[in-house]
Amino acid sequence: MTRPLAVAMGDPAGIGPEIIAKAWQARQLHQLQPFFAVGNIRAIEAVWDGPVRTIGEPDEATDVFADALPLLSVGDRHAVSPGNADISGARSALQALELSVGLARSGAAGALVTAPVSKARLYDIGFTHPGQTEFVAERCGVSKDNAVMMLAGPTLRVVPITTHIPLAKVSETLSVDLIVRKGHATARGLQRNFGIEKPRLAFAGFNPHAGESGAIGTEEIDYFIPAVERLQRDGIDAAGPFAADTMFHPRARATFDAALCPYHDQALIPIKTLHFDEGVNITLGLPIVRTSPDHGTAFGIAGSDQAEPGAMIAAIRLAASAAGRREKAGITA
Amino acid sequence: MTRPLAVAMGDPAGIGPEIIAKAWQARQLHQLQPFFAVGNIRAIEAVWDGPVRTIGEPDEATDVFADALPLLSVGDRHAVSPGNADISGARSALQALELSVGLARSGAAGALVTAPVSKARLYDIGFTHPGQTEFVAERCGVSKDNAVMMLAGPTLRVVPITTHIPLAKVSETLSVDLIVRKGHATARGLQRNFGIEKPRLAFAGFNPHAGESGAIGTEEIDYFIPAVERLQRDGIDAAGPFAADTMFHPRARATFDAALCPYHDQALIPIKTLHFDEGVNITLGLPIVRTSPDHGTAFGIAGSDQAEPGAMIAAIRLAASAAGRREKAGITA
Repeated sequence: MTRPLAVAMGDPAGIGPEIIAKAWQARQLHQLQPFFAVGNIRAIEAVWDGPVRTIGEPDEATDVFADALPLLSVGDRHAVSPGNADISGARSALQALELSVGLARSGAAGALVTAPVSKARLYDIGFTHPGQTEFVAERCGVSKDNAVMMLAGPTLRVVPITTHIPLAKVSETLSVDLIVRKGHATARGLQRNFGIEKPRLAFAGFNPHAGESGAIGTEEIDYFIPAVERLQRDGIDAAGPFAADTMFHPRARATFDAALCPYHDQALIPIKTLHFDEGVNITLGLPIVRTSPDHGTAFGIAGSDQAEPGAMIAAIRLAASAAGRREKAGITA
Repeated sequence: MTRPLAVAMGDPAGIGPEIIAKAWQARQLHQLQPFFAVGNIRAIEAVWDGPVRTIGEPDEATDVFADALPLLSVGDRHAVSPGNADISGARSALQALELSVGLARSGAAGALVTAPVSKARLYDIGFTHPGQTEFVAERCGVSKDNAVMMLAGPTLRVVPITTHIPLAKVSETLSVDLIVRKGHATARGLQRNFGIEKPRLAFAGFNPHAGESGAIGTEEIDYFIPAVERLQRDGIDAAGPFAADTMFHPRARATFDAALCPYHDQALIPIKTLHFDEGVNITLGLPIVRTSPDHGTAFGIAGSDQAEPGAMIAAIRLAASAAGRREKAGITA
């Protein structure tokens, strides 16, 4: 993998600029591939006094990377006040994201890494997607139902089958088709991005104790058992549904490559309990590699030099390894 | 605390007998208070060849404990085949539970520790309670709504506000009153059993991101915000509702003494992810101390010497410390 990675800066008033700069500082320790930031240089300058060099083309990043943080400037250079999100920042975040997706799509960048945005501020400027993931999927020509959000940490990977919907709506949103589609996309994503030839998928049940054969709810019988059977017939190593509470201790985690959970908290509680400072969000099902640190803008600590770059470093490393794997395997779509 | 603890053996074909015997073997290492098993001696003999001595009264356990596992025999001495649950075993488990509760209620035993039972087998003999907790509550004259199940591990305590009901029924089961009642019972339980003078309670929201101010569900606005406010007015250090996925990493756990979660998996996923082999179930709100290891009968490994006694040892230690604390404080009801 020789092409540098594009790192979209996210909201300039959030911790994005700081963790990108800190990741660059740690480039040797973590043997990071060359990358370049995309965004407003003043956001970096507001929180960091290390070397930044503006580049004109992604390729230049490879040479610059040893001595300075390469930066591809986008939009106007408005002043940035860390912690104070505003409309200019939202515009800047969106421009950085658009340019970065385009560079990854064209092959000029090896992969896309996105720093956190403020969804509320993006909505203020007319952004109509639920989040960055759906925007990236659309720009890649992939339906959002086929773009799968996976959270990956050193000892656990999880996929929430539904995401940001009221918990009371999850049951009616589930279907055998949805579960099967997520299963296939996850298996394929584990092969392409993680090099796992025969991925082992474990499905969590919806109800306590996975419903105890229908005694505590029927979603397992209605949706999960038929979906797992269909995936097995399709040649996927799928198992479950299992009681979610006993799936995430060390011995249980060793039995699968990814856990697929019916709803948000069931997937995100274990990964954030175990890997809060190093969790990476990777979008499966796209023609490009896209990762992001699994945390928010943290406006409350922006500008105070407290932001931990661990998850950003992990996101850059995973993007590089997935892109390298795909390049080696000749995967271009 | 000088009175020995009663340890009800649970299903004789499960791992109860083995982990009780192993806990006794580890009595010096873990400085365990004297305890005695209650159940069928043949269940112990089927899986262990260490010293067992039948006692006639709880008091005798104190002297016996150094040299042999004291056992209070109950029911007939039917043959036990580890791993093969049957009706006689269910009867034996129920008799052991009844006698142990009675001994703890009368003060002859310092506290009650229960090994796991097979609910399915208990139902077969006409047991009408959802589980041991509700049975113990009834025998103590406490309404099951005021008996609170807490799971406690070395770095986390959680209380599920609802337990074994379908997830789709949780929303309609929640109410401000229910949440407030559980909050009070938890705070009182932390004071009485753990010696925490001013307990800090953290409430998890029901929806992803605790509903994002109503954008992703309204249970937080309808139930949790008013309940937390009411608890605060009552002088309880209550906070939340918080996004459940960011409540359980080490820095977050340090900010509360117990997390109260609207439903089963939200509470049990983090505790079992972190403390699978050492989680203790303690029932708050009872006039007696009652704990149990937070795992099941594990029929699949019964009789094969593979059962880990860690959670049983933790249950015995917590029962002893809670009983000692209550005795010292003169709490008898």
